[in-house]
Amino acid sequence: MDYIAQTFSVRFSYRVFFTRHLFSLENVLFRDFLTEGDSPVRKKMFFVIDEGVLRHHAKLMVQIRAYFASINNYDLIDDFMIVPGGEQVKNTEKYFHDIVHAVDRHSIDRHSYIAAIGGGAVLDLVGYAAAVSHRGVKHIRIPTTVLSQNDSGVGVKNGINYRGKKNFLGTFVPPVAVFNDSFFLTSLSAEDWRSGMSEAVKVALIKDRKFFEWLKQNASLLAVRNEEAMQYLVKRCAELHLQHIAAGDPFEMGSSRPLDFGHWSAHKLEQLSNFKIRHGEAVAMGIALDSAYSFLSGRLSEDDAREVISLLKRLGFSITHEWMQISGDDSPVLVGLQEFREHLGGQLTIMLLEAIGKGVEVHEMDPFLLKKASEWVTKNR
Amino acid sequence: MDYIAQTFSVRFSYRVFFTRHLFSLENVLFRDFLTEGDSPVRKKMFFVIDEGVLRHHAKLMVQIRAYFASINNYDLIDDFMIVPGGEQVKNTEKYFHDIVHAVDRHSIDRHSYIAAIGGGAVLDLVGYAAAVSHRGVKHIRIPTTVLSQNDSGVGVKNGINYRGKKNFLGTFVPPVAVFNDSFFLTSLSAEDWRSGMSEAVKVALIKDRKFFEWLKQNASLLAVRNEEAMQYLVKRCAELHLQHIAAGDPFEMGSSRPLDFGHWSAHKLEQLSNFKIRHGEAVAMGIALDSAYSFLSGRLSEDDAREVISLLKRLGFSITHEWMQISGDDSPVLVGLQEFREHLGGQLTIMLLEAIGKGVEVHEMDPFLLKKASEWVTKNR
Repeated sequence: MDYIAQTFSVRFSYRVFFTRHLFSLENVLFRDFLTEGDSPVRKKMFFVIDEGVLRHHAKLMVQIRAYFASINNYDLIDDFMIVPGGEQVKNTEKYFHDIVHAVDRHSIDRHSYIAAIGGGAVLDLVGYAAAVSHRGVKHIRIPTTVLSQNDSGVGVKNGINYRGKKNFLGTFVPPVAVFNDSFFLTSLSAEDWRSGMSEAVKVALIKDRKFFEWLKQNASLLAVRNEEAMQYLVKRCAELHLQHIAAGDPFEMGSSRPLDFGHWSAHKLEQLSNFKIRHGEAVAMGIALDSAYSFLSGRLSEDDAREVISLLKRLGFSITHEWMQISGDDSPVLVGLQEFREHLGGQLTIMLLEAIGKGVEVHEMDPFLLKKASEWVTKNR
Repeated sequence: MDYIAQTFSVRFSYRVFFTRHLFSLENVLFRDFLTEGDSPVRKKMFFVIDEGVLRHHAKLMVQIRAYFASINNYDLIDDFMIVPGGEQVKNTEKYFHDIVHAVDRHSIDRHSYIAAIGGGAVLDLVGYAAAVSHRGVKHIRIPTTVLSQNDSGVGVKNGINYRGKKNFLGTFVPPVAVFNDSFFLTSLSAEDWRSGMSEAVKVALIKDRKFFEWLKQNASLLAVRNEEAMQYLVKRCAELHLQHIAAGDPFEMGSSRPLDFGHWSAHKLEQLSNFKIRHGEAVAMGIALDSAYSFLSGRLSEDDAREVISLLKRLGFSITHEWMQISGDDSPVLVGLQEFREHLGGQLTIMLLEAIGKGVEVHEMDPFLLKKASEWVTKNR
């Protein structure tokens, strides 16, 4: 057999910063990041902003202009692009093309930056457009929701939807930096404040019992929107996600998706609701279902399963929904399980719990036990 | 400063096979590759084929169907996609969308394969569509031209054009395997047989004097289409490109583009001719110009510069063109230099020669000397 074996490794490196009032003139963090290394080449900076953010932070563009006035060697592209927030921005190729067209129109090259300010959907869209323009323009993420600051915005995935299929088009490409500004969280709706916390519960359950205990102790503070408690939650949750990515299979070349605990049924629920049920709300219900299944299949103690339900409720989550009920073989949850199996490419891999803080992967789920689990959650709601 | 530093490496690995009659039933290479590891999961295989290849290999689809009849655990998707060859297939998003739509329609998941059979343009298109579908479906390349077998098809780049800008949209994602079948080369036109050889001259000039000597000794055989000589050329050239990718900066995170020796002016010439002048023909002229410049700027000896010109001519290349002449500041070559500078993002980096087999990077080119170089090439054509 005549062949050449090609093997190489590519090192990726970026920082996730935590700050408050990123574009306040006194805050040198962003400026220091951009001017580090002292390159002689002028660079461009293009911003794409979630219109939902501008509604609550009306002076943001004025602040950014003032901030860039004091940075040498950067040309701020004054033509900010404003896009709708939420899943709708990923449901069409229009916004993707708008960004690619802007890259062309403004001659944004591979050493320039595209920064995205917004929720997870906007970051996914902009990250994808940046990743494929010139095979990769530098991308900065400024997540503005709990969910994007502690999970989706700090990772390596991006993408848009295609014919209703979530993230059908996308890449694995890390940003060059993430700036988590906790001030953005203060203007979130009650639903958006809450919904991002389910990812913290998830990652605590599969990886870190101590963090779960912290969540229990601080559930009341978090429920009444204590900013300091939320800062800790966001940072610890982001840290656990980042550690997982670095230690595991960052570009998901294998089948395993350990961070998807509670997610397989949540995906179906989101889709059925036409994304009216938020990702985090759906994940909370998915966590409840899979924790119940972990208990009923003999992996997790009943006390621990009850602890999970109790924490979710104290954080303000609904733990089930009529579409999470399982009556027959065509129940949405069971259809969702089949779709998830296909999505993974044949072999089903589902994360369950064998203790709080310890996940375990399984390759089969028993529909009869799933039905029992759904009934148990309903009884305990 | 409050931050989390994230660093990880991703290992990429693939093989470039050399064979003849890949889909002959007696050739076990492709079958062995697909069935290695003995996965229990059924996989799908989708082929996209360059229509230019089918014109000369009319039985190819029949052969592939027969070949797959004997492979367990694979579902050949019988709906082969036939696309035009050459740059036109990259000039619109139509074919990209056709492939993505096929991925959806045939439920091709991340563990299934999309194989492309064709010249470099078709491989670039299919590689891009595969890379972004589900954030990466496994991609197999079966290059059918000298250029794609020895250079573009064995590397990690893919892409399509956008508003006339070459490879404006694309990614750095390696294939899972490349199969170079030398039988495909026998049906190439004289121009396509020849044009891929300029990349071999290029890589020999910047990296391997011994390979340059081999090219000199075998120029007559190569010019009369000796298949054995071409097999050696393809393999050695592919090997030098693969070594360069693995040892250097595979995803081109820096500014340097050492393999682009002779390419900056070639890009402009291709574009001006609306891609009627083949990439390889243009690169031969670019090599002649930059070798002359290397001599006239005192880096390369005159004898060596003459050796380069002589080899290119013996292989059958034209070494200049009216659009390569430099008369005033608005000469296409000088405009191309400026565009290349912009493409790199500010700092110009051009590979020149300080000896045969030894490249050297420079950051400026003198327009006056470039004019002299263009005149010297014309005089020696």
